[in-house]
Amino acid sequence: MAKIAVLGFGVVGSGTVELFYKNKDSIIKKAGTDLDIKYILDIRDFPGSPFADKFTKSIDDIVNDDEVTIVAEAMGGVNPAYDFVKSCLEKGKSVVTSNKELVAKKGAELLAIAKKMNCNFLFEASTGGAIPVIRPMHRCLAGNEISAVAGILNGTTNFILTKMINEQMDFAEALKIAQDLGYAEKDPTADIEGHDACRKICILSSLAFGKHVYPDWVHCEGITKITAEDAQYAENWGGAIKLIGSVKKTADGKILPMVRPAFICDGNQLSHVSDVFNAIMVYADAVDQVMFYGRGAGKFPTASAIVGDIVDAARMNGTSVSQTWEDSADNSFIADYKDDVVSVYVRTKGVSQAKVSEAFGTVEYISRENQPADELAFITPELKEKDFDAKLEALGGEILGKIRVLDMED
Amino acid sequence: MAKIAVLGFGVVGSGTVELFYKNKDSIIKKAGTDLDIKYILDIRDFPGSPFADKFTKSIDDIVNDDEVTIVAEAMGGVNPAYDFVKSCLEKGKSVVTSNKELVAKKGAELLAIAKKMNCNFLFEASTGGAIPVIRPMHRCLAGNEISAVAGILNGTTNFILTKMINEQMDFAEALKIAQDLGYAEKDPTADIEGHDACRKICILSSLAFGKHVYPDWVHCEGITKITAEDAQYAENWGGAIKLIGSVKKTADGKILPMVRPAFICDGNQLSHVSDVFNAIMVYADAVDQVMFYGRGAGKFPTASAIVGDIVDAARMNGTSVSQTWEDSADNSFIADYKDDVVSVYVRTKGVSQAKVSEAFGTVEYISRENQPADELAFITPELKEKDFDAKLEALGGEILGKIRVLDMED
Repeated sequence: MAKIAVLGFGVVGSGTVELFYKNKDSIIKKAGTDLDIKYILDIRDFPGSPFADKFTKSIDDIVNDDEVTIVAEAMGGVNPAYDFVKSCLEKGKSVVTSNKELVAKKGAELLAIAKKMNCNFLFEASTGGAIPVIRPMHRCLAGNEISAVAGILNGTTNFILTKMINEQMDFAEALKIAQDLGYAEKDPTADIEGHDACRKICILSSLAFGKHVYPDWVHCEGITKITAEDAQYAENWGGAIKLIGSVKKTADGKILPMVRPAFICDGNQLSHVSDVFNAIMVYADAVDQVMFYGRGAGKFPTASAIVGDIVDAARMNGTSVSQTWEDSADNSFIADYKDDVVSVYVRTKGVSQAKVSEAFGTVEYISRENQPADELAFITPELKEKDFDAKLEALGGEILGKIRVLDMED
Repeated sequence: MAKIAVLGFGVVGSGTVELFYKNKDSIIKKAGTDLDIKYILDIRDFPGSPFADKFTKSIDDIVNDDEVTIVAEAMGGVNPAYDFVKSCLEKGKSVVTSNKELVAKKGAELLAIAKKMNCNFLFEASTGGAIPVIRPMHRCLAGNEISAVAGILNGTTNFILTKMINEQMDFAEALKIAQDLGYAEKDPTADIEGHDACRKICILSSLAFGKHVYPDWVHCEGITKITAEDAQYAENWGGAIKLIGSVKKTADGKILPMVRPAFICDGNQLSHVSDVFNAIMVYADAVDQVMFYGRGAGKFPTASAIVGDIVDAARMNGTSVSQTWEDSADNSFIADYKDDVVSVYVRTKGVSQAKVSEAFGTVEYISRENQPADELAFITPELKEKDFDAKLEALGGEILGKIRVLDMED
């Protein structure tokens, strides 16, 4: 018998409670032990809620109740979630969380406490929402050495980019629709500047390579500079533009985590992931590539991942070694993205093909409908990122757009 | 410390041994306990093998060695694998297997023995090769009620269909290439008639709905009747033809497992899964839909799944309730596919549009390049499968092709 406390009764927290009671019988059967929710922590009142008897405003009620062995944190943000989670873990309670910011910023520390206290700190819901990816990566792929991960980790930006490419919409217009539909927040910065995807690639990087990657260490570019014209060129090139969070091993034994929009060719499954859906491709020595696809956010999709972790926490004693990573004292194991070798899509105005050849050698030109006579768009050969800007400057003319081509194997 | 025995040193068995030693250090770290391979069972001799000291021709060596706690079965076929696996489980040894035929035909019985003996019977490698799907389905989706599963479960047929659609190739020609490349066997029956996909959908059905589904109970159609023209129509319609193994809950509380070629629209991720790749889409109440994609066969992809299970077997004591199902005395819980409601692509010769309207009402016509004047192709409205043949007969003329449209939600 395990008693559960749910921290936060917002979208995800209430989804977790509702889903738990909806499928309670089969959940208990799968857990192999009786389960019930004893507390719901929220500073707000919910008069008339069917769960009225479970609400508390004090984390101490939960921390000091030895009957509570599993805590589901769905508050979001680092504070006060961090203090609450830490207090629970220090009491030996397993914690499951959907809080990507918490895991990306405090994961190593919280995992160390869980290990010490022989309880679980699980976070399937923090990355990819409904998509099983954390557990498959560290458990099912345990026989592999992972070489790279690349994912569409943010549904809002994927919705916007899908609109831009399918309906020739401008960024601002597509963002407005996303906001009207509730996919994007009033202040959409965290999504469109890539900060949300950045937290998720930090979690995946830490899990894949065993050392904590902090968000500040990751080169991160958003999608605000993408235009409808860029999207059109991408389609004519035979692909799509996606916001990609990725990490790969580099030749010098470091890792390169990164977030940026990218041209992705049709041959790569990620190019077909549309609307608010997310997908994560994992490249590893034995499997070659595997991809996990589904809804990256939302009330019940995220609740699904939390409940899955609750069932696991009820079944397992102690932390799983493969799901932990160590803290990293500094970022010396993070490669400089300027040393990366890339191909880049470039869109120019008032530049001659002769100048392009002079700067980049042989490029692949792309065309679009209604392309102005003074506009050129092309894909450069592979070159060192650090050499790119100088060559771009040598073109003269105006640079209307530049987007990297995804450099993972297809 | 756990000692492992590998049964069978063919493609998958040797891949398992090689992968284990390649990544041994990290595998042991993830398992949290020391691991080594003590025996390899094979009736053949492998002179000069680096694993020469491990070979035995007698299963008794393994069954009677108490040091061996994990057995990886990679022999294939029911006999003698069944006897060997049973003997090991009865001694309380955990067994992991890539043998889909064994699991599809004997799964319930072997799971019951594992449960009784408090050991594991794991089979991630039996379905979807490298793709993590068994564990994600029963563990990560534990909070969900699954409503349906649909998958591209056979790489050989997917390769053939991809060739047919991308290169306007006939079935026979595409099959020949698949055989030349080693993707299809000399006798390709098990692949092209859908028997291989059938075993896999039996396993997924049993796992999703908790009762053993035997292959004989599954309506199964292969891809031998598909033509290059059908593939062309599918593309012009906005989709592709794939061999789909699926199962869904029906309104009367039964389940309908099935294997058949299907038209799949571009909006469904499965339509983009090409070449030898496999993918499994799971539909469930909380997640909506999640898909798992990767290589469905091959030496190291399959070995990856086996090694993942070995690591799990080393970590867990006892069978996981969520991964077991019960035996079924009869097939009364299997719905009759004739009662299913379907849309069907039909290709006819010498049939008038008036006759089509008379038989089916309003249909969606599809065209193709070089379409003969007396050829009509169309998608019917939804109708009961059992009413379909009579309507088809009423058309008069010749029926050149008929393929169901995938009826899962996109």
